Amino acid sequence: MEDMTGVVPVTSMPYAEFKNHVGEQVTIKGAIHNIRDMSDFAFIIVRTARELVQCVYSPEFSDYRLTPDVVEQCAAKVTGKVVPSETRDGSERFELQISNIEILSTPAAIPPVVISKKQVTCDLSTLLDYRPVTLRNPKERAIFKIQEGIQRGFREYLTSQNFTEVHTPKINFAGAEGGTNVFKLDYFDKTVYLAQSPQLYKQALVPVYERVFEIAPVFRAEHHDTSRHLNEYISMDFEMGFIDSFTDIMNMETGALKYIMNLLKTEYAAEVELLKVDVPEITTIPCIRFKDAKEMCVKKLKNITDMKDFEPEEEAFLGKWAKKQFNSDFLFVTHYLSSKRPFYTMDDPEDPEVTLSFDLLFRGLEITSGGQRIHDYNMQVEKMKKLGMNPEEFDTYLMLHKYGAPPHGGLGIGLERVTMHLLGFKNVRYAAMFPRDINRVTP
Amino acid sequence: MEDMTGVVPVTSMPYAEFKNHVGEQVTIKGAIHNIRDMSDFAFIIVRTARELVQCVYSPEFSDYRLTPDVVEQCAAKVTGKVVPSETRDGSERFELQISNIEILSTPAAIPPVVISKKQVTCDLSTLLDYRPVTLRNPKERAIFKIQEGIQRGFREYLTSQNFTEVHTPKINFAGAEGGTNVFKLDYFDKTVYLAQSPQLYKQALVPVYERVFEIAPVFRAEHHDTSRHLNEYISMDFEMGFIDSFTDIMNMETGALKYIMNLLKTEYAAEVELLKVDVPEITTIPCIRFKDAKEMCVKKLKNITDMKDFEPEEEAFLGKWAKKQFNSDFLFVTHYLSSKRPFYTMDDPEDPEVTLSFDLLFRGLEITSGGQRIHDYNMQVEKMKKLGMNPEEFDTYLMLHKYGAPPHGGLGIGLERVTMHLLGFKNVRYAAMFPRDINRVTP
Repeated sequence: MEDMTGVVPVTSMPYAEFKNHVGEQVTIKGAIHNIRDMSDFAFIIVRTARELVQCVYSPEFSDYRLTPDVVEQCAAKVTGKVVPSETRDGSERFELQISNIEILSTPAAIPPVVISKKQVTCDLSTLLDYRPVTLRNPKERAIFKIQEGIQRGFREYLTSQNFTEVHTPKINFAGAEGGTNVFKLDYFDKTVYLAQSPQLYKQALVPVYERVFEIAPVFRAEHHDTSRHLNEYISMDFEMGFIDSFTDIMNMETGALKYIMNLLKTEYAAEVELLKVDVPEITTIPCIRFKDAKEMCVKKLKNITDMKDFEPEEEAFLGKWAKKQFNSDFLFVTHYLSSKRPFYTMDDPEDPEVTLSFDLLFRGLEITSGGQRIHDYNMQVEKMKKLGMNPEEFDTYLMLHKYGAPPHGGLGIGLERVTMHLLGFKNVRYAAMFPRDINRVTP
Repeated sequence: MEDMTGVVPVTSMPYAEFKNHVGEQVTIKGAIHNIRDMSDFAFIIVRTARELVQCVYSPEFSDYRLTPDVVEQCAAKVTGKVVPSETRDGSERFELQISNIEILSTPAAIPPVVISKKQVTCDLSTLLDYRPVTLRNPKERAIFKIQEGIQRGFREYLTSQNFTEVHTPKINFAGAEGGTNVFKLDYFDKTVYLAQSPQLYKQALVPVYERVFEIAPVFRAEHHDTSRHLNEYISMDFEMGFIDSFTDIMNMETGALKYIMNLLKTEYAAEVELLKVDVPEITTIPCIRFKDAKEMCVKKLKNITDMKDFEPEEEAFLGKWAKKQFNSDFLFVTHYLSSKRPFYTMDDPEDPEVTLSFDLLFRGLEITSGGQRIHDYNMQVEKMKKLGMNPEEFDTYLMLHKYGAPPHGGLGIGLERVTMHLLGFKNVRYAAMFPRDINRVTP
């Protein structure tokens, strides 16, 4: 065999190149997505990695004769002449006048769900049961291309801000946030847990790299079967040291979101267009204190009983308020009550009843929790004791504080949840490729 | 509170900027890494995100008086005048003549392991027991900065080659490669498994995006406690469709490796220098068939009994041979025996005893397994039956083939293993931030 050079021969012409090859014979590879037989000719739509390419078959311009083995979902190599298409809106499009089709592989059966129409129209459960097939529909696959863009934007922005990307272990010896809602794992006769958050590890890495981020799965054994929870999801986390205020964290997130939205509009324009995504414009993001937001909710909404946290209804109201008041799709709610935030959260020195923490609402849905963390050893040990926790169980976590940690804080963003809300879905499962919930672990 | 603008105020001067501020007062933030008291003056080394900055204290040029609370590992804000350093080799370096130190946080104890020397000199077990502390040593943290570079290069290169980044579920309903060596999880009274590979999912996504990759944890319940296995590690996987030959996969990997090595030499030059990394030069990568490689091993080495696979000793020999013969640090070994490769591997149509598969050896260590996969439904079902597997248990996997898949293939690279071998470690645990093995799940 010859040496490998690192060059993969290009044997398929990208659609974007068609305009430079009008009148020429070119070859594309893709799946036969749809065949529309118009009696004297046929439209054969080829699905390539990111596009649908219209090809036209007619005995008029082809010596090749269309055979019955050209069926939807077969993989094919199609050769034809590039010609301009007739488009309704007069926009410039190109199609191939087919001169040959070579079948590369043949399906054994017709898909159980129609995927060659504009939209897959089955119910959610069927959509998910047949994910390996339904994802082939251009709108379905566009959802996860947008999702790629969101996490890519998060990563690229933080990399530009001198963050280091890390990978922390998902097999944990104890639950990161106190041992509730964690999955147990049988590990060589020891009981260990699946990480429900990279929290304690990313904090440990602040004195190492100052700024770190991770994009990785987390696992939560939550028993509720809601439209916005998953038992496994992708968490986009960052943690940064040497902050002057917890607003540094909120500003970093604001910068990342601006970058992400811009990336979607540029590099993911085709998918944004296909899914008619209303990509938010961000200039600045307004803030409101939890206390003030709560007062407003109590005034405007009925039956508010929980004074320590928000119901989804209240978040939705606050989202609308931010849109009306500030024309903003985003709203930071700050200074949540100490009693409702995790043990590592820094209390506000000016009012220890509240914390230097925040949630970010996006169109009325919480997509981020974050805040400043305790960095002083004695303060953290005291807080643990006050909460009835045993600091000895956290001895490796407390190495962070014991051996010196700078003021720091960070946040976590649920990738599927952001995707869901950006695309206007009512259920997070539409925004998870292979969702895991209390009833579903397949496919 | 004011609106968030997305701008995080810069309150620490990066060392790279010092050269533009000679003679001026600047402020840096970092950990006090080391203090060397020279009686009439003191060197105070500040550890920032990626550097050590030399600061000098002397009553001569400072009104500030050094206090006993300035200790190693405290977080500090140091202000001083930028002046050129005296360097042994005459290279241009700068230091700060300290005019003020503000302590931002104070450790509660002295680190249990000395981390302020050039090297952490404790044994492996202690090194790992105190990872949150030992990682602060510049050489230790440089290991994982290099690791970041490897996975970043993999991602950037594949993105440039039109791959889509995906996240596949780690909670699986069945073992991806036949049910052995998988961790069991208690999932709402169902037994499920942790993914030992994204194999079956990434294949399912080939008809969706044509080219996909994932960088994510995988879990293997292997009982052996060796120097090159971990029970949780980061797998860099890709899968590509419409290949003309399995050499397309090998060429794609060659391109990715060239890109990675170049990225390390440019963006990670400081860490490469600090760790004296011998970054391989890649022009082309030679190939040898398994059969020919085996013959050579049998001739040159004693006591070869397993004729179907390689012992580590044989891989090491082949690595040396490739270096001598081709001056290459890498060697592709191809056409492994069918009986030794997984059920989804494509047999060579010219000789069904062997497969269209390969391993990549890097300096005599296997770092990649890959190959072409079966894409035809009947062929895959037949192979499963021949191997005594029940195709019905794989019905969701087989949707890929049943409903049409192009010729495709891919590979997986163990991130820690590449890092280990690039840095010349004898044990993979040195290249895992928080390694998990049969005896260790902490910290």
